[in-house]
Amino acid sequence: MFEMTDRKPAGRIRRLLVANRGEIAVRIIRAAHELGIQTIQVHSQADGDMLAARLAGERIEIGPSRANKSYLRPEAILDAARRTGADAIHPGYGFLAENAEFADMTENAGLIFVGPSGDIMRTMGDKARARKAAETAGVPTVPGSRGVVADVDEALTLAEAIGYPLLLKATAGGGGRGIRLASNPAELKDLFIQAAAEARAAFGDPGIYLERFIPRARHIEVQVLGDGENVIHLFERECSLQRRRQKIWEEAPAASLDDDIRQRLCRSALELARAVRYRGAGTVEFLYDENRRAFYFIEMNTRIQVEHPVTEMVTGIDLVREMIRIAGGHRLSLRQEDIRLTGHAIECRINAEDPALDFTPVPGTVETLHIPGGPGLRFDTMLYPGYTIPPFYDSLLGKLIAWDHSRPQAISRMARALREMRITGVPTTLPLLLELTGAADVREGAVHTGWLEEWLASKTLDLPLEKAACP
Amino acid sequence: MFEMTDRKPAGRIRRLLVANRGEIAVRIIRAAHELGIQTIQVHSQADGDMLAARLAGERIEIGPSRANKSYLRPEAILDAARRTGADAIHPGYGFLAENAEFADMTENAGLIFVGPSGDIMRTMGDKARARKAAETAGVPTVPGSRGVVADVDEALTLAEAIGYPLLLKATAGGGGRGIRLASNPAELKDLFIQAAAEARAAFGDPGIYLERFIPRARHIEVQVLGDGENVIHLFERECSLQRRRQKIWEEAPAASLDDDIRQRLCRSALELARAVRYRGAGTVEFLYDENRRAFYFIEMNTRIQVEHPVTEMVTGIDLVREMIRIAGGHRLSLRQEDIRLTGHAIECRINAEDPALDFTPVPGTVETLHIPGGPGLRFDTMLYPGYTIPPFYDSLLGKLIAWDHSRPQAISRMARALREMRITGVPTTLPLLLELTGAADVREGAVHTGWLEEWLASKTLDLPLEKAACP
Repeated sequence: MFEMTDRKPAGRIRRLLVANRGEIAVRIIRAAHELGIQTIQVHSQADGDMLAARLAGERIEIGPSRANKSYLRPEAILDAARRTGADAIHPGYGFLAENAEFADMTENAGLIFVGPSGDIMRTMGDKARARKAAETAGVPTVPGSRGVVADVDEALTLAEAIGYPLLLKATAGGGGRGIRLASNPAELKDLFIQAAAEARAAFGDPGIYLERFIPRARHIEVQVLGDGENVIHLFERECSLQRRRQKIWEEAPAASLDDDIRQRLCRSALELARAVRYRGAGTVEFLYDENRRAFYFIEMNTRIQVEHPVTEMVTGIDLVREMIRIAGGHRLSLRQEDIRLTGHAIECRINAEDPALDFTPVPGTVETLHIPGGPGLRFDTMLYPGYTIPPFYDSLLGKLIAWDHSRPQAISRMARALREMRITGVPTTLPLLLELTGAADVREGAVHTGWLEEWLASKTLDLPLEKAACP
Repeated sequence: MFEMTDRKPAGRIRRLLVANRGEIAVRIIRAAHELGIQTIQVHSQADGDMLAARLAGERIEIGPSRANKSYLRPEAILDAARRTGADAIHPGYGFLAENAEFADMTENAGLIFVGPSGDIMRTMGDKARARKAAETAGVPTVPGSRGVVADVDEALTLAEAIGYPLLLKATAGGGGRGIRLASNPAELKDLFIQAAAEARAAFGDPGIYLERFIPRARHIEVQVLGDGENVIHLFERECSLQRRRQKIWEEAPAASLDDDIRQRLCRSALELARAVRYRGAGTVEFLYDENRRAFYFIEMNTRIQVEHPVTEMVTGIDLVREMIRIAGGHRLSLRQEDIRLTGHAIECRINAEDPALDFTPVPGTVETLHIPGGPGLRFDTMLYPGYTIPPFYDSLLGKLIAWDHSRPQAISRMARALREMRITGVPTTLPLLLELTGAADVREGAVHTGWLEEWLASKTLDLPLEKAACP
């Protein structure tokens, strides 16, 4: 069933422009080459030396180093596609990947956008519209006020239905700013007045809405894949280990779910994706309340995700290949019953950050690079010895993925691989990740989205910047 | 079922001495570390810098560079084990791996030998005894004279039963020497007299035996795993692409088998392994006659094989881990029905050889090393940038393994990976392997053990020594 017997495995795509950088650009090039597709890699001035530019069939410079002058400029990308004769664009993640206008512009230019249509992105990209779509599809959302609360009295009435503790959030806020936690009516009364005044001062908009606070929530997300007609899910990932909302350790399947909840969660994600006739690879994100055994839709990401490899390891499905095939006009070749979970996979994100300096990103030149090998391991990276990491972009150096039959075995394999890996020339988060493999809560799977920050605050980290290990 | 819930996953083994070198030593160390076992790496004078010595917990020098002064000396290995407090020895492949006396000496010294007992090795290591064991177990062997043929008349009589064409082999010969092919009684008559005379001259023994010649035979082998009580098989590998009897491209499963033959072949291997109450990892090798749909036992290898990763990729079983666990006293944790085949895997052996110089091994220092990555790929190697390959041992640099859902997809992935890989500083067989991925017979799976040499002879190889590829 998985075999590609068609003579044009990539469909209508013959020349693919990769509109991204770093490890995901390398990932896309590899998938394209295996499909017999020619590749063109765009790069900023700073990125002429990057691995993706070396691996691609062709490369083209699109502007100065800062992303808003290059990778974030739709015109620069489309111009490069035109000049190189590309017939399709893969946006990767970040940059323009969830920019609905860019998707429209690409299609209007007669090119294939490897991802969903601009319309699907607009529906799922707007938090309020996405929440409405979820509710229409019968997918649970975090109980809340469904919009701005008029005054304290309304807040107190609504709070009875929502339940305490609850969060007060500024509608105009974002990134965690303007959020307050109320545990009872008296606190709600005081905080509502405070929060509205502060929101008016900070954002020029006093609008406040209410949302149930889910203590010790887990972040669980479901991978979906659709061709505009059929949609399937590829089970879930758990990404509760986060620091400043950045995931650093992801797993598939989620250790905390039993089969009943897993089925319900995956079915919910599928219903939502089916409701919008989803096309491409997407992720439906949920908060999971382990105590109530309840999950709540947060948002949908309409692109490939950083942590997609853990799903690939437990299902055997090459998600980037499937995305490209679907964009090329192929129907989904997989049926839901073809997707089976085997074993357990963990991904650790290795960043060029200095834990001793509050995880400040530190650019530099990679000297030694030893990548651990053996069964069940994979390292998705753009590093090579001598590569100078430019200071303009994110700090992700690579993703180490370990698969094994069980979660404890996958952790043992990850620990072995982290001990074996060696990157010198830049400080990395390797020592932190190795420490995590030994943490009792991590080993027991007893974590939540606030766990990592609590753990970091509770201990004096004394991590060596470089390990005395193999070559 | 696969989960290791026991608190001592490695059983009685706490400190494992690795009595080998190169990539297999690295492989064993990784498996041991994931089981929480301490490792001690032996090395010759030339091998102090090798990757395995750097990755192991400890290292110990055992003698001069030549293998017969170091890796082949049982006393040197046992002395190193004693001095470092090892409680077990893993022999890898080659060197002492199939030396029954060494297995006995290890056990007599109170140490665990990771492999079968000396008695099992003696039974299966002697070709005549192994053939007898196979026949007793009802496993087909190549029809032949079962011993020395007295004279021409007996040869002619026996030949009627065996069938033409047939091979005349000198009992004292080996490595292909002293072999003749007779297509009819007249040829047999002439060749028998010639061959006996030459064998007397060359080996001091005129003994000749007869064996049916199987034209265009394939080499197919079955992986087995036993704990002395239970034995299971892990399906087969096909290794028909050989040059001078050296395998260079191996696959699992065999493209040429249908399910009926596959079941019969695997059952035969299992019956033989059960008959000797096999313990450890072993391989039962067969010749397969595709025209007659018949297979014939050749020999059994009582150790881990170079090409074991293809089996690991299609079954998900870590064979080296299982070997160590069994040697540590664990029962086989797998039942036959747990072993399922998923997808297709290919291994290419990358050797430091110069195809332009008739594949002469060429030592040297590795300058650049770029290892291809992505889903479904694995590279088992002992290389690192700056590593100087010593001239004393074999020319294997590493094994590139590609897995995908189907054989054509696995070939596409392998081709992409071979194109991406870069090793500079020494000539390698990479260009030859890449050429093979495009050969029509290889793509169709229409090969046999003589195919590669015919193909090499038929074409003027014009392979670049280094490719102009990525970093």
